[in-house]
Formats: sequence, structure tokens, C-alpha cells
Amino acid sequence: ADVKKIAVIAGDGIGPEVVAEAEKVLKRTEEVFGYRFETEHALFGGIAIDEKGTPLPEETLSVCKSADAVLLGAVGGPKWDNNSKELRPETGLLGIRKALGLFSNLRPAVVFDCLKDASTLKPEVLEGTDLMVVRELTGGIYFGEKFRRESAQGEEAVDTCAYNVTEVERIVRQAFEIAQGRRKKLASVDKANVLETSRLWREVVNRVAPDYPDVELEHVLVDNCAMQLLRRPSSFDVIVTENMFGDILSDEAAMLTGSIGMLASASLGEGSFGLYEPVHGSAPDIAGQGLANPIATILSLALMFRTTFGYTEGADAIEAAVSDVLNAGHRTSDIAVDKSTAISTTKMGDLIVAAI
Amino acid sequence: ADVKKIAVIAGDGIGPEVVAEAEKVLKRTEEVFGYRFETEHALFGGIAIDEKGTPLPEETLSVCKSADAVLLGAVGGPKWDNNSKELRPETGLLGIRKALGLFSNLRPAVVFDCLKDASTLKPEVLEGTDLMVVRELTGGIYFGEKFRRESAQGEEAVDTCAYNVTEVERIVRQAFEIAQGRRKKLASVDKANVLETSRLWREVVNRVAPDYPDVELEHVLVDNCAMQLLRRPSSFDVIVTENMFGDILSDEAAMLTGSIGMLASASLGEGSFGLYEPVHGSAPDIAGQGLANPIATILSLALMFRTTFGYTEGADAIEAAVSDVLNAGHRTSDIAVDKSTAISTTKMGDLIVAAI
Ligand SMILES: CC(C)[C@H](C(=O)O)[C@@H](O)C(=O)O
Ligand SMILES: CC(C)[C@H](C(=O)O)[C@@H](O)C(=O)O
Repeated sequence: ADVKKIAVIAGDGIGPEVVAEAEKVLKRTEEVFGYRFETEHALFGGIAIDEKGTPLPEETLSVCKSADAVLLGAVGGPKWDNNSKELRPETGLLGIRKALGLFSNLRPAVVFDCLKDASTLKPEVLEGTDLMVVRELTGGIYFGEKFRRESAQGEEAVDTCAYNVTEVERIVRQAFEIAQGRRKKLASVDKANVLETSRLWREVVNRVAPDYPDVELEHVLVDNCAMQLLRRPSSFDVIVTENMFGDILSDEAAMLTGSIGMLASASLGEGSFGLYEPVHGSAPDIAGQGLANPIATILSLALMFRTTFGYTEGADAIEAAVSDVLNAGHRTSDIAVDKSTAISTTKMGDLIVAAI
Repeated sequence: ADVKKIAVIAGDGIGPEVVAEAEKVLKRTEEVFGYRFETEHALFGGIAIDEKGTPLPEETLSVCKSADAVLLGAVGGPKWDNNSKELRPETGLLGIRKALGLFSNLRPAVVFDCLKDASTLKPEVLEGTDLMVVRELTGGIYFGEKFRRESAQGEEAVDTCAYNVTEVERIVRQAFEIAQGRRKKLASVDKANVLETSRLWREVVNRVAPDYPDVELEHVLVDNCAMQLLRRPSSFDVIVTENMFGDILSDEAAMLTGSIGMLASASLGEGSFGLYEPVHGSAPDIAGQGLANPIATILSLALMFRTTFGYTEGADAIEAAVSDVLNAGHRTSDIAVDKSTAISTTKMGDLIVAAI
């Protein structure tokens, strides 16, 4: 097989621990399926600030650009929270998304059987919940002009939210296509009764919708969506929305499944290149203790196999191995009901490797 | 007693029905407590578009300005959804908030005992949930410059989000004061890791915080708040945030209580003047059928008594009457478990009047 190059960014907090387990899984798939991977590690986030003086060093960007895909652990932590803007991990995150053209963030929110009870929602409400938030990732208020100025009412801060037709159309078409491969329902979320960017968004959605006649489309206002996710989570299939709304709604959706610690995500651009990472954060409070759950990162790898490499067999095998290990009752402490029986990060990784 | 003037805006959908019941309650408190009210009705929203060609006629604004408080039913409906911006009910809503200087929107989210099971959250998670979202209402992206322009990537839409120190400080101080009168906890919600307006917001919060040493303050990022509301709703007391975030989070918070159809809200400016309205919308699908629940509107009146007039006795009496009627088992169809025993809008109003 040809060699696939993966840029590996461990990052901060529990990042290095969970990424190490995913790398063991990667090796195992080489043995079992004959894939060939070349991995290159790169510094990013807080550790890059500490070691290189910037959250997104040039070398890291070139490692990513020369790779077929990126596996990211997690970045950030209290240590860097009060840094100036250029020296914050989040700035690196926004920078890497923009530099790699990752305009689309896919965040599936599914309920893991073994975690059904972990949700704060009633099981009967959650039943059947399996949705995907498609979030625009390189536009909107995150990337608009920002500044301070003097006003008659004291200092004033300004953020600008802009979207053009091209930006909206590419993400919306992608969402329609994803919906075609799922239950064929798309909810487009905006605030068209107030925002001009939302009105443009809705116009574009309505213009392209006839190209996907098999997809049932609904427009949902963002405030209403925040409510409907709570009231009828299982009725959603694909949700597409702009950057800021997607940030809020994808976290709400992930949390309501009760499975947030196990969810994978993909950030994609044009072509097959993608950045894959767990939905959870860097959890600095438990870092370095072998307590972290590597499953979300391992499932991010499966998502990479499926989406970027087309390695369906390997992806299926990883996902099946995760299921098997969970079904056999193994749990890291975050998902263990009886904490005294919890296994470590590396043990969980070993079991999944063995099950492949 | 001196005469208090109330501008009454019935609005659209179920608005007229629920407001009529609140007016009966108003009359009853005159008899029982010797208050004296003068009410003046005004057109607003969809009905004003139909009858006057604008959602917020000049006369309506002067009626409100000459009043001590405004009672609003609900506005909007599908009939006006595709109108141009100037001819939409929402435009009237934004206009009236700005024209009356209502910079603060208080949305209490409490769980009504009789509705505990109506929430999609597990009862043990919901237990003790009683929070108040304080939403900035006349600034931010709702009121910033909006326009379209040509770009190399097709038509582009722009919204501007601006906040100055004065705008932030007045709402934040109000939230601290509200927290002092409650459980003394304040969560300030922003996206300071990305937005300049949020960084200004957080600076102001941190600068004024020492003036309220008895209030425990936490900063919560908006995406995290959307999650924490689901995970630990009862741990929140007062949440203060900017306009757009407040729109989303207050709806999420209201929905998770399961009591959204019963919640009252207040929009306040400087001084005692305020606009009071139910949190629920105009529900055009059930309008005119006597099915609407007038309780949220009646409780909005109680909130007006307490907040604008300082009529504590009357407010207590209204709230007690609502409790008594609910405890006696009376339900409108929205909250009835057995729909066949549901009573009508007017019957519910009559029972509450009789209980005062
Ligand atoms: C850290 C932050 C900048 C980031 C975002 O808001 O995009 C994070 O919340 C996420 O969702 O990936
Ligand atoms: C109708 C709309 C403009 C309004 C808002 O977003 O403020 C509504 O959602 C609300 O929360 O009162």
C-alpha cells in the first residue's frame, strides 16, 4: 500500500496520553491490514508557546501541510489563559483552521449504549439520538475584524461577522451531501429574523436546496434550536450552521448525549485532507495520571481512516474493537460506575489494540 | 393610592387571549388592595403591520412612554415571516426595546412543582433549579451596523457587534445586585478566548466585582455554559451575558425547566419603568381557541407589581393565587396530563381571580 503521512499533534494536558494510545492502534492496523503510515510529531498549543514562543510554529504548519491528515489530542490549560492574544493556545487553533483551509467541522453526537445513563436527559427522550453538527469553521465573527476604539460612552470593542456566498454555499452543500448519506434530514440554523449574515445564509440554503430533493430541509432559529435539542434530540439528523452558533450548539448536543468524553470530530477542507480530534478538551486537572479515556481519540483515528483514507475495513475494525472492549465491561474512570474497577489510559489502549 | 398607568399590548396569536386574563387579575387587585390602574391599549407587532403599516406605530411608542409599565402578550406569526425587514414583528420588538431604553432582560427559569415531569431532564438533575438569566438587550450584534457588499467570493453580508464600557457596566452591576438579593452567585458568560467584545466584557466584570465582595463570581465561556446548563442546572443562580448569547442561553435554560409555558420576564431600563411579558411566544397554531395558558402573563403582571410598582402584597397575592389554583389540580391543556380534564383560558383566569 502507499504510505499515508499523518501529522501527530499531542498538545497539552491529557493530549499526549490519549494520542499515544491512538498511535498504538495505528501501528496495530499496519500489522493487521497492511496499511503503511508515516507519522511526524509537531508542537502546537501551550507546549509550543513554552518551547517555541508561539502556539502555531511555522514548522508545525509545514508538517501538517505535507501530511495527508492530522491527528490532534487537545490544547490549552490555565497556564496560558491569561496570556496576551498572540500567546494563547486558542489563537493557534483558529490559526491552524484558517491556514489549512478547514472550513467544515463535523461533530457527531451519538449515544453510547454503555453511557446511556450518564446523560442528564431522560432515557426515553434520548432514545435514538444520533445527530451530526456541521459547523462552518473559518468564517463569521471568529475571523472578522476586531478592534477597540474610543466612544462617548467609554472604550468600545468591536467584532465583525461576515459571510460571503461562496463560504456559505460550500458548507451548506457539504451538509446536504452528508444528510444524503444519513437519514436525509437537514436543519439549517440561523438568526435570520435579526442578522444580515443569517439572511444571506438562508438565501443560499434555499437556493441550493432544490439540488438535493431527497433531503428534507427545515430552517430553525438558533434560540429555538437550543430548545429543540433538549426537547426532541432524536428528531435531528444533520444540523448545519455558522461558526459561533455551531460552537454553542455542538457542545450542547454533545453534552446531552452523555457521551461527550467518547465523541470524535473531523475538520475538513476541500479534498480529502482533514484534522481529527476528540471533542473533549485537555482536562489539565487529570493530566499525567493515567486517568484519561483514550476512546474519543481512537475513534477520531477511525474517522480519519474512513473519511480521509477510505480505509473502511480499518475504521470498522477500530470501532468494533472499541465496542467489544466496552461490552466486555472495561471502563476508564470517567465512565466507570464503580471507580475502583476503572482501568488506566494505557490499559484501555492495550485492550483495544488486542481486540483489533 | 396614586394611579399607575399601564400600556397594554395584546399583540398577535394567543397574545390577546392571555392579556385579557391578566387584565381581569389587574381589576381584581384594585378591588382587593385598593390599587388604581389606568390601562391604555396599543397596537404592536403583526396586527400593527396589518392595521397601521408598521410593527411599531408612533402612537404605540407614546402610549408606552407615558405609562409606568408595559404589559405585552406576544407578537409574530407565519403571516408576517416573509415580509421585508421593516414590516416584520421582530423589527418592532427590537425597536421598542431600543426606544424605551430597556437594556436589561430578566428571565427567571424556575421549575414549577406541578410541571416537574414535563422537563426532558431527569428529576434528580433538575432538583433545586432556580436561575435567572440577565440578558443585555439593546447592544451587541442585534443593533450593530448591518449591510451587504460585493466581494471576490460573491455577495457578502456583514453584521457588527459592538459594546462600550458604559453598556457593559450598567448590566453587569444590575446582575451583581440581583445576585445579592438571591443566592449570591453570578456567572458571567462570554467568549473571551475569541471575541474582542467579550474581552472588554470580562475586563469590566473583573473591575466592578470588588464592589460586590459578597457575590461569588465565575467566568464561563458560552459553549461551556450551554453544556453546564445541562449538566448542573441547579448550581447556577444568576447568569449575566450579552444580547445574542442571552437569547440562546435563556431559551435553553427556560426549556430545561420544563416550565417554559409558565415563565414570566421583565425588560428594564434605568429607573422603575419596565416591560413585562411571558417567555412563550404567540403560538399562532392554537390562537383563538381558548386553549392558551394565561399563567405566564399573569405572573408577568405579578413581576410588574413587585419590580416597577413595589406592590409586594399584590404580587404575593397573585403568585399565591396561581399556586392555589394549580394545587387544586386545575390545568389548561398545555400542562394537563389528562387533556380531557383541561380547562379553558378564561376559566383559568376566572379561577385565579377568584383565588385572590
Ligand atoms: C477554544 C475555542 C477557540 C474553540 C472554538 O470556539 O472554536 C473551541 O471551543 C472549539 O469548539 O473547538
Ligand atoms: C424575536 C426575536 C427578535 C427575539 C430576540 O432574539 O431577542 C426573541 O427571540 C426574544 O428572545 O425575545
